[in-house]
Amino acid sequence: MTDVLARLRAALGDRVDTSPEALADARADRSGHESGSDPIALVHARSVEDVQTTMRIATETATPVVVRGAGTGLAGGANAGTGEIALSLRAMDRILEVREDDLLAVVEPGILNADLNAALAAAGLWWAPDPASRDIATVGGNIATGAGGLLCAKYGVVRDAVLRLDVVLADGRLLHVGHRSVKGVTGYDLTSLLIGSEGTLGVVVGATLKLRRLVPGEVRTVAATFPDVRTAAAASAAVTAAGIQPAIMELMDAAALEAIHALLDLPAPTPGAAQLTVQTDGPAAVAEAEGIAEILASAGGTVAIARDAAEGERLLTIRRSMHPAMARLGTTLIEDVSVPRSSLAAMFEEIARIEREFGLVIPTVAHAGDGNLHPNFVFDGPDVPEVVWAAAEELFRSALRLGGTLTGEHGIGMLKRRWLAAELGDDQWELQRQIKGVFDPLGILNPGKVF
Amino acid sequence: MTDVLARLRAALGDRVDTSPEALADARADRSGHESGSDPIALVHARSVEDVQTTMRIATETATPVVVRGAGTGLAGGANAGTGEIALSLRAMDRILEVREDDLLAVVEPGILNADLNAALAAAGLWWAPDPASRDIATVGGNIATGAGGLLCAKYGVVRDAVLRLDVVLADGRLLHVGHRSVKGVTGYDLTSLLIGSEGTLGVVVGATLKLRRLVPGEVRTVAATFPDVRTAAAASAAVTAAGIQPAIMELMDAAALEAIHALLDLPAPTPGAAQLTVQTDGPAAVAEAEGIAEILASAGGTVAIARDAAEGERLLTIRRSMHPAMARLGTTLIEDVSVPRSSLAAMFEEIARIEREFGLVIPTVAHAGDGNLHPNFVFDGPDVPEVVWAAAEELFRSALRLGGTLTGEHGIGMLKRRWLAAELGDDQWELQRQIKGVFDPLGILNPGKVF
Repeated sequence: MTDVLARLRAALGDRVDTSPEALADARADRSGHESGSDPIALVHARSVEDVQTTMRIATETATPVVVRGAGTGLAGGANAGTGEIALSLRAMDRILEVREDDLLAVVEPGILNADLNAALAAAGLWWAPDPASRDIATVGGNIATGAGGLLCAKYGVVRDAVLRLDVVLADGRLLHVGHRSVKGVTGYDLTSLLIGSEGTLGVVVGATLKLRRLVPGEVRTVAATFPDVRTAAAASAAVTAAGIQPAIMELMDAAALEAIHALLDLPAPTPGAAQLTVQTDGPAAVAEAEGIAEILASAGGTVAIARDAAEGERLLTIRRSMHPAMARLGTTLIEDVSVPRSSLAAMFEEIARIEREFGLVIPTVAHAGDGNLHPNFVFDGPDVPEVVWAAAEELFRSALRLGGTLTGEHGIGMLKRRWLAAELGDDQWELQRQIKGVFDPLGILNPGKVF
Repeated sequence: MTDVLARLRAALGDRVDTSPEALADARADRSGHESGSDPIALVHARSVEDVQTTMRIATETATPVVVRGAGTGLAGGANAGTGEIALSLRAMDRILEVREDDLLAVVEPGILNADLNAALAAAGLWWAPDPASRDIATVGGNIATGAGGLLCAKYGVVRDAVLRLDVVLADGRLLHVGHRSVKGVTGYDLTSLLIGSEGTLGVVVGATLKLRRLVPGEVRTVAATFPDVRTAAAASAAVTAAGIQPAIMELMDAAALEAIHALLDLPAPTPGAAQLTVQTDGPAAVAEAEGIAEILASAGGTVAIARDAAEGERLLTIRRSMHPAMARLGTTLIEDVSVPRSSLAAMFEEIARIEREFGLVIPTVAHAGDGNLHPNFVFDGPDVPEVVWAAAEELFRSALRLGGTLTGEHGIGMLKRRWLAAELGDDQWELQRQIKGVFDPLGILNPGKVF
């Protein structure tokens, strides 16, 4: 380990950080979980060459590397510990190119979603991926996790918004995968394979992103409260079934709403009430919002259309405050199950059953437009209690029975790997392990994560 | 080989076809090229079990397998020859499930795009991939090639329209990859890896497709003729630059137009003239068509808006007749380069240069909205003349210099594998070969294709 640190310092100088604060930071992400010990060092890469140098040293010394962006992950995927190099790409945050005519941008991975979109707005463009953490999360982190967010049903996930990646392999070689063109089928789609691979296949050091033009017209926001969460879920399904495609459709159950209102010093919500917040955009936004308001009212909701964009933003801020609201209550295990849209109400029934059976309260928000739920288990202290693991396992199995998946957008990281094989099946799990072996024969890329 | 055939017959009975007609068919696709000799047999699979049985026998006897759909490929990817089993999935053409609420369909791979969409239309739904061959091509073939088509710039490619795949591995095991839910990031994205893998990684025996609701409103079609193809290409770029997103924007150069008009017994077009055919849809179709007509007129086009949908369809039929028009002139080598949209006019300049330098006429059509060009080399007899290979290589290198790719939507097959490593680079080529080895350790899945 001394040798590794000495070699890193010799090659990278002050980019190698061993301050106690840096090492402590590198142990954790925003999942509330952290590794039990410090990594060897935190390398602040400033260039592709820095990343290549780090990976060459890692390969020559068989030292594990944990790549980090802003550390906002929710599955422990970027947590580094004993004997590992933490490699931060946060300082590589330049926009290298923006092409309005080709609707693409070439960026470094450390740029924040919000900063990128602020820059793109000047050209009338945007990058659609919109995780709730968009103000604090990096594009590279979005790519590593295959992030989702609030706008996915209408505007897609990260995988739909990346054309090409520059990747440093485990041994330091630089590879370019994908295309600048809209279409391209030369060989296997390694771009998609790398998206969501959580730092286990290579280090993404550059990305060519597929942009959209800013959506013309007004945005309209509709909020509706329902006596209970099942009614709210059924109402959201009615919107989808009516063939209207909102930009955003978010559901908060009573426990989530209560915690968020407390965090934001808002008046306490009606006990038991759940809320749907729906946003429409584009040329038909006004008509769609009115149609949605009618559907929600018919489904038993108390409906209000926001008077203006500012009020609409305030309504969405409530939803975006879920994570800090939970973090204030204790340590959280944030689940991320995703089910077919038609199964959303059934999944909420399952959550209610699990709450009863395990004697827990599980505050839950959902991207109702695409069937992705975030049930939050909150507890004291650093370790997940056994009852929470057991309830989470039951939750995951319920999602699978309903045709869903373990993780819609957060990734597997450390916190969900115990269930990976249960979803993939042994044959696929083994195949994926072998693919990992092709990219990382020494097993130095984020070991102990995903698999 | 006798043993293989005997085992296939014992296990699969009359599904094993060794008639001269069947074996001759299995040697060729629609590229105009064929293998030099007959395969062992053509197996007409009727079920997943038939495919598993075939693959088990293939693995046990180390016999290569070439999977086929309707045989409409344009890169020789499904051509079978000596010592190989041709495995047709064309008879597996059932729609197993359609869910309006979840916007998905589960289908067998042998169904034709057109038949699927005819069935979906009753439920107000459609599957967006729209290759020019949609009336005769299978969904499984679309998936194997990662097909594109006319609507891609607005509605995406096959990779954007598949949620989940059922795959028989080389040794006969059945695997399910992907999700029924909108989101899902559990493990690596093997669904995307399999799409476009041209039968080299596994046999797709089922697909869960992501559907769209039929687009409401009218469709408008605009046609414009230009004095030359460069002017037409610049005009199409002006449409994209104006921020209007047509559903379809097709460009035909003079040689292409002339051949198609001859095939369809239409009056000969103005010599040298190129044509752009643009279609808009959705609520803003009429306004967008008018905007496009103005832009095309300003760019030097003689513009006509189709009076009704039937006239619009006739205009698009002209474009869709390109392939038969070329096939009538001789054997074709259809190129499929794709470049960033802004480079379309420059790519046409390159084609003109190559025509001059090699003394060839290269009729070309382009999906101008997404930068995908199909330059056609036409010659006599079964073998590609050296001058055509040389010109095609120059074409490909020009596309690469412009930031493009060798193949936008047809795949590599046999006809483009000589250039695969040139585009991927040696490191990526080797990585892809190793991934192939993970799925197909015996090398029995479509050997000699892609790699």
